[in-house]
Amino acid sequence: MIDFQLETLIRHALSEDIGSGDVTTQAVIPEAARGSARIIAREPLVVAGTQVAHRVFLLVDPSLKVGIPQQDGSDARPGDLLLEMWGSVSAMLMAERTAVNFLQRLSGIATLTRAFVDRVAGTSARIVDTRKTTPGWRLLEKAAVRAGGGCNHRFGLYDGILIKDNHIAAVGGVGPAVAAIRRKIPHTLKIEVEVETLDQLDEAIDVGADAVLLDNMAPAVMVEAVRRADGRLILEASGGITLDNVKEVAETGVDLISVGALTHSARAVDISMEIDPVKV
Amino acid sequence: MIDFQLETLIRHALSEDIGSGDVTTQAVIPEAARGSARIIAREPLVVAGTQVAHRVFLLVDPSLKVGIPQQDGSDARPGDLLLEMWGSVSAMLMAERTAVNFLQRLSGIATLTRAFVDRVAGTSARIVDTRKTTPGWRLLEKAAVRAGGGCNHRFGLYDGILIKDNHIAAVGGVGPAVAAIRRKIPHTLKIEVEVETLDQLDEAIDVGADAVLLDNMAPAVMVEAVRRADGRLILEASGGITLDNVKEVAETGVDLISVGALTHSARAVDISMEIDPVKV
Amino acid sequence: MIDFQLETLIRHALSEDIGSGDVTTQAVIPEAARGSARIIAREPLVVAGTQVAHRVFLLVDPSLKVGIPQQDGSDARPGDLLLEMWGSVSAMLMAERTAVNFLQRLSGIATLTRAFVDRVAGTSARIVDTRKTTPGWRLLEKAAVRAGGGCNHRFGLYDGILIKDNHIAAVGGVGPAVAAIRRKIPHTLKIEVEVETLDQLDEAIDVGADAVLLDNMAPAVMVEAVRRADGRLILEASGGITLDNVKEVAETGVDLISVGALTHSARAVDISMEIDPVKV
Amino acid sequence: MIDFQLETLIRHALSEDIGSGDVTTQAVIPEAARGSARIIAREPLVVAGTQVAHRVFLLVDPSLKVGIPQQDGSDARPGDLLLEMWGSVSAMLMAERTAVNFLQRLSGIATLTRAFVDRVAGTSARIVDTRKTTPGWRLLEKAAVRAGGGCNHRFGLYDGILIKDNHIAAVGGVGPAVAAIRRKIPHTLKIEVEVETLDQLDEAIDVGADAVLLDNMAPAVMVEAVRRADGRLILEASGGITLDNVKEVAETGVDLISVGALTHSARAVDISMEIDPVKV
Amino acid sequence: MIDFQLETLIRHALSEDIGSGDVTTQAVIPEAARGSARIIAREPLVVAGTQVAHRVFLLVDPSLKVGIPQQDGSDARPGDLLLEMWGSVSAMLMAERTAVNFLQRLSGIATLTRAFVDRVAGTSARIVDTRKTTPGWRLLEKAAVRAGGGCNHRFGLYDGILIKDNHIAAVGGVGPAVAAIRRKIPHTLKIEVEVETLDQLDEAIDVGADAVLLDNMAPAVMVEAVRRADGRLILEASGGITLDNVKEVAETGVDLISVGALTHSARAVDISMEIDPVKV
Amino acid sequence: MIDFQLETLIRHALSEDIGSGDVTTQAVIPEAARGSARIIAREPLVVAGTQVAHRVFLLVDPSLKVGIPQQDGSDARPGDLLLEMWGSVSAMLMAERTAVNFLQRLSGIATLTRAFVDRVAGTSARIVDTRKTTPGWRLLEKAAVRAGGGCNHRFGLYDGILIKDNHIAAVGGVGPAVAAIRRKIPHTLKIEVEVETLDQLDEAIDVGADAVLLDNMAPAVMVEAVRRADGRLILEASGGITLDNVKEVAETGVDLISVGALTHSARAVDISMEIDPVKV
Repeated sequence: MIDFQLETLIRHALSEDIGSGDVTTQAVIPEAARGSARIIAREPLVVAGTQVAHRVFLLVDPSLKVGIPQQDGSDARPGDLLLEMWGSVSAMLMAERTAVNFLQRLSGIATLTRAFVDRVAGTSARIVDTRKTTPGWRLLEKAAVRAGGGCNHRFGLYDGILIKDNHIAAVGGVGPAVAAIRRKIPHTLKIEVEVETLDQLDEAIDVGADAVLLDNMAPAVMVEAVRRADGRLILEASGGITLDNVKEVAETGVDLISVGALTHSARAVDISMEIDPVKV
Repeated sequence: MIDFQLETLIRHALSEDIGSGDVTTQAVIPEAARGSARIIAREPLVVAGTQVAHRVFLLVDPSLKVGIPQQDGSDARPGDLLLEMWGSVSAMLMAERTAVNFLQRLSGIATLTRAFVDRVAGTSARIVDTRKTTPGWRLLEKAAVRAGGGCNHRFGLYDGILIKDNHIAAVGGVGPAVAAIRRKIPHTLKIEVEVETLDQLDEAIDVGADAVLLDNMAPAVMVEAVRRADGRLILEASGGITLDNVKEVAETGVDLISVGALTHSARAVDISMEIDPVKV
Repeated sequence: MIDFQLETLIRHALSEDIGSGDVTTQAVIPEAARGSARIIAREPLVVAGTQVAHRVFLLVDPSLKVGIPQQDGSDARPGDLLLEMWGSVSAMLMAERTAVNFLQRLSGIATLTRAFVDRVAGTSARIVDTRKTTPGWRLLEKAAVRAGGGCNHRFGLYDGILIKDNHIAAVGGVGPAVAAIRRKIPHTLKIEVEVETLDQLDEAIDVGADAVLLDNMAPAVMVEAVRRADGRLILEASGGITLDNVKEVAETGVDLISVGALTHSARAVDISMEIDPVKV
Repeated sequence: MIDFQLETLIRHALSEDIGSGDVTTQAVIPEAARGSARIIAREPLVVAGTQVAHRVFLLVDPSLKVGIPQQDGSDARPGDLLLEMWGSVSAMLMAERTAVNFLQRLSGIATLTRAFVDRVAGTSARIVDTRKTTPGWRLLEKAAVRAGGGCNHRFGLYDGILIKDNHIAAVGGVGPAVAAIRRKIPHTLKIEVEVETLDQLDEAIDVGADAVLLDNMAPAVMVEAVRRADGRLILEASGGITLDNVKEVAETGVDLISVGALTHSARAVDISMEIDPVKV
Repeated sequence: MIDFQLETLIRHALSEDIGSGDVTTQAVIPEAARGSARIIAREPLVVAGTQVAHRVFLLVDPSLKVGIPQQDGSDARPGDLLLEMWGSVSAMLMAERTAVNFLQRLSGIATLTRAFVDRVAGTSARIVDTRKTTPGWRLLEKAAVRAGGGCNHRFGLYDGILIKDNHIAAVGGVGPAVAAIRRKIPHTLKIEVEVETLDQLDEAIDVGADAVLLDNMAPAVMVEAVRRADGRLILEASGGITLDNVKEVAETGVDLISVGALTHSARAVDISMEIDPVKV
Repeated sequence: MIDFQLETLIRHALSEDIGSGDVTTQAVIPEAARGSARIIAREPLVVAGTQVAHRVFLLVDPSLKVGIPQQDGSDARPGDLLLEMWGSVSAMLMAERTAVNFLQRLSGIATLTRAFVDRVAGTSARIVDTRKTTPGWRLLEKAAVRAGGGCNHRFGLYDGILIKDNHIAAVGGVGPAVAAIRRKIPHTLKIEVEVETLDQLDEAIDVGADAVLLDNMAPAVMVEAVRRADGRLILEASGGITLDNVKEVAETGVDLISVGALTHSARAVDISMEIDPVKV
């Protein structure tokens, strides 16, 4: 994410929270007050979003000095320090909630991703995300998935072909759909087809699809799908994947397991900020 | 939320998903293809975000005809229709993911809020949200809380005074903090003080605070707080509230119970779209 | 006002004045020309807007060195120095008009506010502003009011409740209006009611309004209003207040006197810039 | 002003006033409430800004029906109707303050301009504005000057050459300045020179300037300037012009009289809105 | 391109041309004047950009009635009608230059693309564009290439992998580069490698690249490259392609020929607008 | 062009090219990799756009160190260094295409302008540009024309009057058109009239036009036009000017020759970037 793209989102978030002003802080905290602050993990978590939080503080006050002892993707235990800073107490108080809101959500995604990734350790399957992200946050959430050890599926409708049932119906079959697309898309994109049955899988293999999304298939059926594909195309399992069943899915031999919950249902992890004002 | 404020967020979300174009749809679906589509609940849920979803579709194609049979705040059962529409198949496919992403998150918040509200039914306590919202989404998420039957706490740092420990420390006590603020803020704002002990509560009562946030107090202590306050100020319970303990907290007699999880940890509810293309 | 909010307004103002370029300066002034400049009061005034002017110059040329010898809120006499700077002569000339336009208007507001504040010295009344501000300038103008010694009323429709006649008519009386609002608004907001008669005041007191706006009442009536309120709610005098009558109004014992003219009819004060180019 | 340029300013103004919502109206006025409203002159004034006010209402609610019985530039007496409308009561209440703020300021400028124009009736002098406008409002304020019968000076630094003392000093005299500029600017621009003495005027005439700004000259000196110019260039009087002295200045025979006060010190005129809700 | 993305570009273009107003038209053309206008080809060309031009006119005046008799991609002869419209003469005059500027450039690109496509008719090679587009115009220019019968290469750095010499050098060879990328990118993207020699081609084939860009190879070498590739990967010829040599390149058997000149060096074609004002 | 205006365009261009990320570079180039890069002319050209390219690199990474050995307007031979830089290899790769796209187009315009200017050397005619620029790029392209030794015509519809046939027809002749305009425009603007015949020229002279555009006149007719004008107004030749005929036109004695091709049909010149990564 280019810096200025991130800035637009953060400015919007700060405007939303601060609006016409932090009336409490402006009334109570002297502008000259300086101090230190620490952002701390309150439960075990995988860190994500520290650069975003850093930018939040700098946008409120570019003179804040911020240190980031933990890189995104590292494990934090309760009490671990995620960011530390020194500078204007007013600025730190005005930025606090927005910065922590980013951190607790992105680290929540990284933490949940890590749980899925750990479950499939030892298999060849990779955990990937979906387009079921928070509107406006896609690049940040996909970076959090990477921080958690997951991989990214396509970023949008523009950087990957995924032929779904509606597309197939519109042109009368997998074969015509793949053929129609191949003539029109940039040659840099692969063609993935969503299938619900083994017959559809066979058709996708026949027309030379590059990848197949196995939609809500039972593990036993996926085992057969892996056998039929025989390495000629990429197999992605999708639909109804949970921490409880992801290992069984991974052991079918599929290449990718996509999990919408990584981004749409990760709970926020507990992170908070402490300020030590210095007498002035 | 004024229409044009909402539009900015939706445009950003659509740009993020569609980018340089929906290559699959553009290659497969004829521009002239028309059809109908239905957005359907896949699990029991409280509806929220239908107006947002409506706008998503209209921004992609203003000629789509969209009906909303369910108002925000109503209960939906699996299979219930949330939106129905008629028009360009391409447009509906391009807007689908963004619209559903909004709906599943906002309805998830409304659904979780409803669960908390139902637990405290019969008490005088109201469930309120916090500023722990998704950056960029605050107005939408607070509307979803209302759809679920909850009430809104302040919208930002600008429309309410909440004196926290850092503020109190900066001026040397609750009394000086309240006095300093009263001289400076618009007279339209009340003054709420965060307290951790009954002694601090007494101090807040003495200096004439309008409301008090009881931070992580045990229910038994809250009972005593209610007794001491004796209706002179508003009491808000906060910290560690779950579906399991919210009833016990409500029965202490506090006025408000604020729950960060409403907005930061609601899981997405299951909602999907079906398209019926018409032959052209 | 967060820095980046201010920047948006200033960029718009500079674009409006400079457009496709300062053709005169570009044709005559060598790019390498350096010099000093001074912005000077040409009449007695209360200073406001110096930080805004500072940012105007920096947005045109971040390498300008700017000093601000007078803080906002201080008194300046004719000839007093408001800003001084050193750097590119072209940049100073391009920024001059925009910077001075901000200064002369904001200082005009501060100066007029000071005049009102001085008139009520010795009474307990505070001078407050209104929402009758220049669209786009509200935060700046309200800061100028504070610089002049005034206080701020609510910043917008979002941070205060003011029930006017149209609202009362819609629900059939002050009582129902207050009751309806209390159930719906964030508990951090007070409820103020606009009244035109002493009967309406009594009704507002009965229903527990937090403040009352006395609309265009004669001083004698206001004296009676103060007596009836007896400290139970905040009294705001409004309507037709001038420098000639403000003292009489203040002496009725009201808490606040709101004056639209502070922001909608302050004349610009006389401020100008002198440049001393250095030979290059 | 292209429509979408105006929209940007109005959106900013509405966001500033409405922010996270009009809490009073949302709590009290039923969404379905419909009614009529009238915006009315409360003192004699020259109308300006009706199209802007119209757009304010439409941006809040495009379904409002708005009529404008008075064209910009017409005279209104107390009680005259400026705008009338029908539709959502909530929308009209939310837009009211912003719309009236535009109207009262722009009509104030038109009214003051008319006063100056009336004073010079019968002479050949035209009243023109300056760049001393409210940052962000220049096009609107210059349109209000035209509504009042005045003429526009250049709109910014980009559409006119005005060589001031600083420019002259930089290149060593009026002659070199004019020569330097003539080689570099688009040939569509005239060259105006600011002069303080008759000697400088002679120099400007000699080098073929197209216009001259007579800075703070006494009327008697201006009479001599008119004699020397003898119709060969345009003469603009500037500096210290008031309603009291403008006639005397006009009678010197100058072509243009520029008045900064038109835009920087016009007081707001008294305009208000009445709503008649209909029972629903 | 979603409608609102296009609008942003057009608004910028209109602001740039109209700025503070079309002073000539405003002074001469009565606002009520109505008439018809026709945009006409003045030389043989391939049409592109008509939808863009349409939007230009509607953004200046939504009440203009615009017809587009020619679809993008069709051939036009001198005198052929590209757009026709009816409505406000002022609006048509203000929009004219911007609309025609879009049309003449985009049709120029389509016309040049068609010339390249015609030259390779009868071969299996497709003409594709590059990222050498006018900054800010990429989606429009790539649509113009399609209108001319060409195909699109990747739209940016985000929707395709192209490993160039700098990338290869950084990781020490084609093999390590391809391996490093495969682990990190979305599985929906193919991997293309830029090669300058047949040895590099062999290495790319060995590591399983999906496509290869043959950089500035002589036709004879390309023939050998086609032989070695034997249909296992896509071959793209690039560098120094002109209308004179493109046929020879196509006959080598490569799949794609990329031509930067399509977008960076197409000359504008001759298009003009005629207005027939109607007496009013 | 003010810095922040340029930034908006560059941000748009970078977003368009980089989108959700440079997947190739992110996968292959270590974030810590540092190196040097050089942008080099590959053919003889006149330099333009170096400041723009500089800003492109700084927007991607403000820590890049960039040197610009050639000023805009200087001649470069093949192999000449235009920019050199040191810093993050990733950043340089991400910015490369956008920076070079700006440089090759703007230098192309400067180079073509220089060719026209050289052809008219020794005459008194100046080469000027038109409004036939790339929408969104006008200020940059007009600066490139100046770099090539040309002069600028008006920048838009706002900074010059050009009365065309449609305007004349609307008010019934050149005389009424000029008279109507003179009363309404800022006095800082000259009035230019487009004429197609010598009779129209005479009429323009009679009514006191400041300049005349001779539309598509034969050189012999222009000679007569120069004779009749006799220095009383500026003569601009326009229409069908090429490198082949521009000298002949210049020798007629006209003051200005406007050439649309300078900006609408200049081909990109050949410029490329080389990177020397340093081992890390």
